[in-house]
Amino acid sequence: MNSVYIAISLDGYIATPEDGLEWLNTFPNPSDSDYGYHEFMDRVDALVMGRKTFDIVSAFDPWPYTKKVFVLSRSLKEVPAVLVDQVEIVTGDISAVVKKINRQGYNTLYIDGGQTIQAFLKKNLIDELIISKLPIILGEGIPLFTPQDLSIKFEHCSTEVFEGGLVKSHYKKLK
Amino acid sequence: MNSVYIAISLDGYIATPEDGLEWLNTFPNPSDSDYGYHEFMDRVDALVMGRKTFDIVSAFDPWPYTKKVFVLSRSLKEVPAVLVDQVEIVTGDISAVVKKINRQGYNTLYIDGGQTIQAFLKKNLIDELIISKLPIILGEGIPLFTPQDLSIKFEHCSTEVFEGGLVKSHYKKLK
Repeated sequence: MNSVYIAISLDGYIATPEDGLEWLNTFPNPSDSDYGYHEFMDRVDALVMGRKTFDIVSAFDPWPYTKKVFVLSRSLKEVPAVLVDQVEIVTGDISAVVKKINRQGYNTLYIDGGQTIQAFLKKNLIDELIISKLPIILGEGIPLFTPQDLSIKFEHCSTEVFEGGLVKSHYKKLK
Repeated sequence: MNSVYIAISLDGYIATPEDGLEWLNTFPNPSDSDYGYHEFMDRVDALVMGRKTFDIVSAFDPWPYTKKVFVLSRSLKEVPAVLVDQVEIVTGDISAVVKKINRQGYNTLYIDGGQTIQAFLKKNLIDELIISKLPIILGEGIPLFTPQDLSIKFEHCSTEVFEGGLVKSHYKKLK
């Protein structure tokens, strides 16, 4: 199963035009909620992200993930020495990549990063969407969705509202 | 007060590329809910829409509105004879148009149609957003939001979930 877990603005952006995420932290969160992030991560076997997201998160200290990370990249040839146990570079056709990752025993995959999510959606490879909508029109930025030929119906599973006005909706692809 | 009340797909479209709205009726609605439409219309004084939306709704028989409709258009010179009491053409700067409509006693305005909503948002003239999200990725279509210079924060008021997976969220602009 391939899952998306992401926050977006009312106008559908996941980041500012310069990949900025600071706006995500401008909403009141008095009870310091993680909005269900750890609960989600607990049921994830591994992450799949693009080169761009990897470059951003690999600058974090400490490394933010306890689960294995697969980086989809044709250009990246090796990972930093400290991350060789946690990170693996994968390349090629996405369906084949997913099969290869599944064969290694990683079945529930957290698909992250705009371009990677879009590539999965275009191949109808996203099974679950968990979208947290924040009450702001950003005006411009990196969109979660870009035009694609394929229309995909989902089933609404649940919606939760958090302090600060975050509305988290959980969808599963209709079979 | 200027309000938006509209349905969108997960990927933010309000219609297919050819203005199609049939997809809106492909979700189960066993209790024949109007999703709060009449409750909303009851507190609206008038509608403001663009020429394109007017051309679509003016083909409906019977005419679907009981409230006055203002059509924002430079090209439309007169309304069909049967609609002269219900419809008025307005033109010019949007802020001035809104003031003129308000002076006629119409204070709560339902702003409809993609281009008209976008024009109001770009001038920061939308006070309320009521967005009903349907569980489908359309892939392509007419977007509700287009890029704009202005970032606008809203307050989340309420979210309701309806059968068929429609998630309706109500936002008011932060003062």
